[in-house]
Amino acid sequence: MRRLAERAVYDRSAIHSILDEALICHVGIAGDEGPVVIPTIHARIDDTLYLHGSPASRLLRTVKRGEPLCVTATIVDGIVLAKSHFHSSMNYRSVVVFGTGRLVDDRVEQDAGFRAITEHIDTGRWDRGRQPSEAERRATVLVAVSIDEASAKVRTGGPKDDPEDLELPFWSGVIPLTTERGQPISE
Amino acid sequence: MRRLAERAVYDRSAIHSILDEALICHVGIAGDEGPVVIPTIHARIDDTLYLHGSPASRLLRTVKRGEPLCVTATIVDGIVLAKSHFHSSMNYRSVVVFGTGRLVDDRVEQDAGFRAITEHIDTGRWDRGRQPSEAERRATVLVAVSIDEASAKVRTGGPKDDPEDLELPFWSGVIPLTTERGQPISE
Repeated sequence: MRRLAERAVYDRSAIHSILDEALICHVGIAGDEGPVVIPTIHARIDDTLYLHGSPASRLLRTVKRGEPLCVTATIVDGIVLAKSHFHSSMNYRSVVVFGTGRLVDDRVEQDAGFRAITEHIDTGRWDRGRQPSEAERRATVLVAVSIDEASAKVRTGGPKDDPEDLELPFWSGVIPLTTERGQPISE
Repeated sequence: MRRLAERAVYDRSAIHSILDEALICHVGIAGDEGPVVIPTIHARIDDTLYLHGSPASRLLRTVKRGEPLCVTATIVDGIVLAKSHFHSSMNYRSVVVFGTGRLVDDRVEQDAGFRAITEHIDTGRWDRGRQPSEAERRATVLVAVSIDEASAKVRTGGPKDDPEDLELPFWSGVIPLTTERGQPISE
């Protein structure tokens, strides 16, 4: 039941590709009474991760105070069932980014960030929708987080059973998991 | 691009069903240099959430110190594309649990928790695999978190465009997302 076959990955292209493929991330900030973890969408441009929120959000307060945050993106690729439950696991790819957020107030960077977030959930969408008005821009906060301090963990492959368990009469292997996009439902 | 149509849900059965359906969760703890968010699997029994880890994990340290933690489980149900990017969003269900962890050392509760975690990823699996040995039990830490202080957020339905945007010549609607289990790959 533990993850014994995982490995840490530090190369930049692996980190980038996980961040790009993960549809959402989970942002951890320090709340008044302990950590708070919130799901949100994100996008990456080069070595910068962009998040957005409302001006009233805890995320913005964290950024304004210069407090550290943690962004974790996880893709689950499969269920790994070993002969022993102890060695059962998940195949997954995850990235953890540590940093402090930077409030983006430069207009050009804002445009790029908003565009990247829109394109992250649907490639090509930026030109297929109405772009933000001035009022909408004021109602949205864009936060940049450097990906400098990031690491990835990846587990792939089948179960790693102990040799003495290999003949046990239980099925072992991997059940692949994928995220599928269904038929679009028009408004 | 913000989540305007979301609503908070506090009824216990909704919270339970989201925790049960979400395959993994993200646990936030306070690290030495700021929040740390880690993906892990979980299981629920009644109003208790169970997590497991290695005896060397930061999770165990957090629990032993009595420090607060946050467990967030998120299911993404769809991409919501509005005429305006501002109103584009995601359909999702998420639960946030705040609490402190309790180290489970009672043998009966340990059995129940390990079983629930195994069954969470594959229903019926507990009896179709080798159960933990004494050495494996010692190498695995089981942590219980009360679900008393939890809330859920749910967004469903189509985009909520501003009236003046409704005639814009862009497609709007929802692209459903589902997690699919593929053909099992035998070891």
